[in-house]
This record gives sequence, structure tokens and C-alpha cells, in this order.
Amino acid sequence: MKLASRLGAVAPFHVMAILERARQLEANGRDVIHLEVGEPDFATPPTIIEAGRRALAEGQVFYTPAQGIAPLREAIAAHYATAHGVHIDPRRILVTPGASAGLMLALSLFVDAGQSVLMADPTYPCNRHFVSVLGGRPHTLPVGPQTRFQPTAAMLAAAWQADTAGAMVATPGNPTGTTLSLSELSAMAKVCRSRDGMLLVDEIYQGLTYGVPAETALAVADDIIVINSFSKLFQMTGWRLGWVVVPAAWVEPALRLAQNLFLCPPAPAQHAALAAFLPETLALVETRRQILQRRRDFLLEALPGLGWHVPVVPDGAFYLYADVSAVTTDSFAYCRQVLEETGVALTPGCDFGQHEAGRYLRVAYTADEARLAEAVARLRALQG
Amino acid sequence: MKLASRLGAVAPFHVMAILERARQLEANGRDVIHLEVGEPDFATPPTIIEAGRRALAEGQVFYTPAQGIAPLREAIAAHYATAHGVHIDPRRILVTPGASAGLMLALSLFVDAGQSVLMADPTYPCNRHFVSVLGGRPHTLPVGPQTRFQPTAAMLAAAWQADTAGAMVATPGNPTGTTLSLSELSAMAKVCRSRDGMLLVDEIYQGLTYGVPAETALAVADDIIVINSFSKLFQMTGWRLGWVVVPAAWVEPALRLAQNLFLCPPAPAQHAALAAFLPETLALVETRRQILQRRRDFLLEALPGLGWHVPVVPDGAFYLYADVSAVTTDSFAYCRQVLEETGVALTPGCDFGQHEAGRYLRVAYTADEARLAEAVARLRALQG
Ligand SMILES: Cc1ncc(COP(=O)(O)O)c(C=O)c1O
Ligand SMILES: Cc1ncc(COP(=O)(O)O)c(C=O)c1O
Repeated sequence: MKLASRLGAVAPFHVMAILERARQLEANGRDVIHLEVGEPDFATPPTIIEAGRRALAEGQVFYTPAQGIAPLREAIAAHYATAHGVHIDPRRILVTPGASAGLMLALSLFVDAGQSVLMADPTYPCNRHFVSVLGGRPHTLPVGPQTRFQPTAAMLAAAWQADTAGAMVATPGNPTGTTLSLSELSAMAKVCRSRDGMLLVDEIYQGLTYGVPAETALAVADDIIVINSFSKLFQMTGWRLGWVVVPAAWVEPALRLAQNLFLCPPAPAQHAALAAFLPETLALVETRRQILQRRRDFLLEALPGLGWHVPVVPDGAFYLYADVSAVTTDSFAYCRQVLEETGVALTPGCDFGQHEAGRYLRVAYTADEARLAEAVARLRALQG
Repeated sequence: MKLASRLGAVAPFHVMAILERARQLEANGRDVIHLEVGEPDFATPPTIIEAGRRALAEGQVFYTPAQGIAPLREAIAAHYATAHGVHIDPRRILVTPGASAGLMLALSLFVDAGQSVLMADPTYPCNRHFVSVLGGRPHTLPVGPQTRFQPTAAMLAAAWQADTAGAMVATPGNPTGTTLSLSELSAMAKVCRSRDGMLLVDEIYQGLTYGVPAETALAVADDIIVINSFSKLFQMTGWRLGWVVVPAAWVEPALRLAQNLFLCPPAPAQHAALAAFLPETLALVETRRQILQRRRDFLLEALPGLGWHVPVVPDGAFYLYADVSAVTTDSFAYCRQVLEETGVALTPGCDFGQHEAGRYLRVAYTADEARLAEAVARLRALQG
């Protein structure tokens, strides 16, 4: 049995080793504080749960159109209008089984085998792997605090090669929680456009921003692909529902791919997600955003006392990317040690790339403030 | 904007044009009999619906392990034991977002760019496209009534080339509804094994067989990949839930891919599917299988009167592949004409390949007997 060569380019998540060990510790009665997982600790809003239960009772259990049900695409379009003042034709929206499927769909549309895709290092780990699975090459751009851990339009232009198919960025980003401004996104779109390449903007943490408005790259360009999801802002991770906005000219090929790759997104989830844009749901989501902001503020205040340096104040998502070089040169080993000795689970920088990865770790503030305080206290005790 | 070249190899489903026209007709008040869609008309069994509603109420809305929740993998393994007498380690089972994701996962594991995969023509259309998306080449083997529309081990051996990565077959198959015997599957596994290639067996219609036992290729080989799904037998199409059984040595790479490609299968669906193996659910599913068998028998009796010839009695799935060469040379044009003039929607052979495609059409017996009788009456009237 010969494994395909693409498997050589697909790394496991290092955080899985952390997670597995955390489960063992818990099975042995240890109390673990989980700050390693990329999902909110809040359950899906009750309005959405109820809509899902109703959809099941009503028999919404058959295949839907591959593009997603029309009312959901219209509700998403309406949300772009009311929340962002941007008018998107619902026909440009494809509902997908999570942003994961959206990323696969989007990259399949513009990355040919042998081509490369520009992306930050550090970045969401699956990005590299989606490109590899398609026979493409992730072309990573080392980024650091100087550019708020984001690539710039100038960096894209300088790195562009004959085999570059396009660039992918995320705002707010994972693992660093930083956003890109509309003017920077516009400049990036221009770089890609002028080189006949595609700009892919992952907006899966859209709406989870602190002190800056929630924005969309669609406000400044319509010849880009935008990825989004109900996972994070609407706390629907396990439902597997996201969406993609494609340029009008690409709807037809995108739909052809979606039909073949996924058949359709989950039907009960689509009907449930109709409740995401109800005023009641949006109010709850806003309350939760404020809770996340307070947690971020608490950690920004507390972490320096541990010798952990947060070089860029993250203005989105629910992550802090901490420079722990004052206490270790190997953040993966450190994450394992911290887990063993304090029961605090964290994600090492090496999951997100290679650039100074041993120097950083990601803190997901997906536990309440009391637990965060407890985590900080345990870490302080560890340092003696 | 440059579309990736793989899009050139991904055809739309022709049945979509039929479906769209059917919807227009319905919007204009016409009564359409839908025999074109590949899903049972039965809603998900009430036990499964209830389990899904309960899971939502209990907050099963977070990411699950990428491999699927352990109780579901154990329930699937137990079902292989009780229904088929085959013992499968639950660790070899990966739950996927539909068999669609399972097929993508499986092919990603063994098909390198530039390699080819042997498959029947006619076959389930997505098969060709999954291979193309990965940069592989579908190597289709024309099959006809002589081999019950299935490839044989001898055909695989004869067609095998240096660049062949493996073969994929389906039992029962779509669009022809025919099964493969265990001895033929065993012979095929041997051909693939001796050439260092992989055999992929799609068993998504497993359990929907008529007059022959429900079998699994896992009874005769454990170095193959088997695809299955809750879509068809358990009537859970819209939930998006399937599974893959991989050789023990491939669990680790398969899991790495699953983590990256999908994150996890839908959580509510996984908890709902636990109810699929309850005696009560299995009894209902058996009743429905008998209903499908009666519909098949009705059509086998009625279609020859229309000049439609069913050259091989299908012993599975819910499809009849009818040779309509006595009434047309272009089954796609004929399907469109039939829809316009009688309101009966069917799938043309060209969706499934090129081999004698204009001669065949697929009838999905996914409407009750009264509607099937009405469809036959309308078709008879059309022929005057
Ligand atoms: C940046 C980014 N993109 C995409 C995803 C995929 O999310 P989902 O498939 O749940 O929508 C994640 C999940 O953590 C992410 O962090
Ligand atoms: C042969 C075959 N395989 C796989 C699938 C995919 O099914 P699902 O993704 O709903 O499990 C289908 C659907 O019609 C099919 O006919």
C-alpha cells in the first residue's frame, strides 16, 4: 500500500498531543484549564438551538441545493448590508460545510498543481495543508510584531513569482488575533489583481473585534474570495456551517465544485442558522463579545507578570500570541511542561509555522475570567 | 482572474438542468413526479430525529474529535459484527461529513497527481471529479449488461498501467443498482494488492439489497478502503454523515487529513446517528427496504410496456438503469422532452459517463407506488 506523496506535506496538529495528554490527566482526576482549543466555550445561542430542533421536527433532513437554501443566502446578504453597509448579491454566496470546506472550495478554484500561494507564517495550520492536498505549494511569508503579524501588500508584491496563484490572509487572524485595515486589504487586492492572481480573505472571526469596527474586505473589492463561518461569532462550531463569497463570474464553476465535493451543507444547520441574524441572537452574541474583550484585557494585564510578552495587542478573535522567549527557547516543550505541572493547556507556536515558532505560544481565552485567573495563578506558582 | 485548470475536468450534473426546469414547471402549477433525485423519499426515522433533537437540547454543538465520537465508531463496528459477522476495530473507522467527504479523504490517501484510478463507466459522477480535483486521471472502463454494469477483476488487471494508483467500485452501484459478489471483490482486491494499488469499495447503498444478502467487502479483505454513509439506508441525506474504514496502517495519515480537511463531522448528526442501530430503527428501515423492493418489482413489470428495456435486474440501491434505445438515440433530449410533456423527471445516462450514455436513463424509485403508476401512465400516453 503506497500512501500518496501529499501526506508528506500534511503535518498533524501538535496541539493534538497536548489535548490527548490533557484528557489522560483529566481521566486521572486532574483539573485541566483548556486554553488550547480554537472554539468559544459558549454553547450555541438558544434561539439557534431552538430553530435547529424545530427544523428537525419539521423534517428538514433532505439534501438541499448545493449552494445552500435561498433564505439563508438572503439572510447572509442582508447581514452584510445592515452590519457592514455592503451589498452582496445572494447568488454570489455559497453556503459550505464549515469554513473548512469553504477554504478547500476556494483554493480548488484558483490554485493549479505546481502553483504557490502566499500566506503568513504564523498562520492557521490547515491553510498550508489545503494547498498541499491540491498539489500546490504554500509560500510562507515570515511575519512578526513589526507588521502586527500580518503580511503587507508590499510583501505580497515582493514575494510574487511566476508560479504564484494568489495570496491568502485572515482578518482577524489565527493565531495572533490581529486585523487588517480596509486600506491594506484594498492594496493587497490591487497587488493580486495586477498580477492576475486571486486574493482569498478569511473572515471567520468577523464580528469578534475589540475597539475596532467589524469590517469586510468585500467593502473594498468584489474580485476576491471571502470565507466566513457560523462557527466562531455564532458559536456553531460543531454544526459545520460556513459560507464563501465568490466573484460573480466564478459562481458557476464554484457551484460545480460544491455539487461534486460536498453535495450540500448540513440541512438542519442551515435552517438553524436562519436564527443567527435575529435581533435577540445578535444581542446575545454582542454580550458574549464583550465578555471576550474583558477576558482579553485581563490577560493583557496579567501575562507580563509571568514574563510572557504580548508584543501586539490583538484586536480580534479570542487568541493572544505570547512571546515566551524570556522563559523558554522551545515553546512546544514548555507547553508540555506547563500542562504536566499546572494542568493549563496551551498551543505551541510550531502548530502555526516555523518562523520563530519556538518563541511563541497561543492562549485561547475560551474559559471564564475565574478560570483564567486560576490559570495565571498556577503559572505564577510554577515559576516560583 | 484565472480559474484553475481542474475546473475543465469537472462537469455540472446534467440532472441539475432537469431539476431546475422541473422547479419552473412546478412554480407554474404543473405536477412533477420526481424520479431523478438520488435520495429516498422517506424522512429520517423518528428515533434518529428524536435523538438529534435531544442532542441539541443537551448542547452537543461543539467540535468533536476529527475521527468522530467514540460511541458512534463503536456502534458502527458493532453493526458490522451483528449484521455482517465481520469484526472491525473501531479505531479503523473514521466518521466523515457524508460519504462525499469520505471519498475525498480516501482518494487523497492514495492518488498522487498524475496517477490514474480505474472506475466503471457508467459510475457515480462525483468519482471522476474527486480524482480530477486531486490532479489524478479517471481511467474509465466501459461496462455493460454482460458484466451487470460492473468491472471485473480481469478488466482491472487488463487495464492496469504503470501510473494506476488503484480502482474504485461500488456495490450496490449508482446508477445501475447492481451488486458485486464477495468472490469478485476478493479477486479485485487481489489484483490491486499484487500491483501495490488500492481498492476503494463504495458501500453507501449497503443494506438496500433485494433477494441477495447485504454484504461488505471487509469480509474478504482488510487492506482496502470502504466508504459508507448514513444517507441512504438510514435516510439521513441532509445530515451529512458517513464513514470510512481504512487499513490499520493508514489510520494515522487518514486522521491527519481529516483534521485538516473537515475538522470534524457534524456533532448533532453524530449523536443522532447513535439511534440508527436501535432495533426499532432497524425494523423501520427493513420495512422501508421492502417497500423499495415492491417499487422495483412494479417498475420491472411496467417499463417493458414503454419499450424501455432493463437489461440487468438491479438487486440493490433504488435505481433502474433503463435502455431506451427503442424510443430515442439521445436520452438527455428524451429526458427533457419527457419532463416537458409528462412532468416526469428522470436522469439521463450522460451524467454517469460516456459509454452508450445516450442509450440509457436512470429511474430512481423514490416515489410511492401510486406515483410510479401515474408516471408510467403518463409515459404510455406520451407514446400514444
Ligand atoms: C482562521 C480559520 N479559518 C477557518 C477555520 C475553520 O473553521 P470552521 O470549519 O469551523 O468554519 C478556523 C477554525 O479554527 C480558523 O481558525
Ligand atoms: C455511489 C455514491 N457514493 C457516494 C454518494 C455520496 O453520498 P453522501 O455524501 O450523502 O453520503 C452518493 C450519493 O448519491 C452515491 O450515490
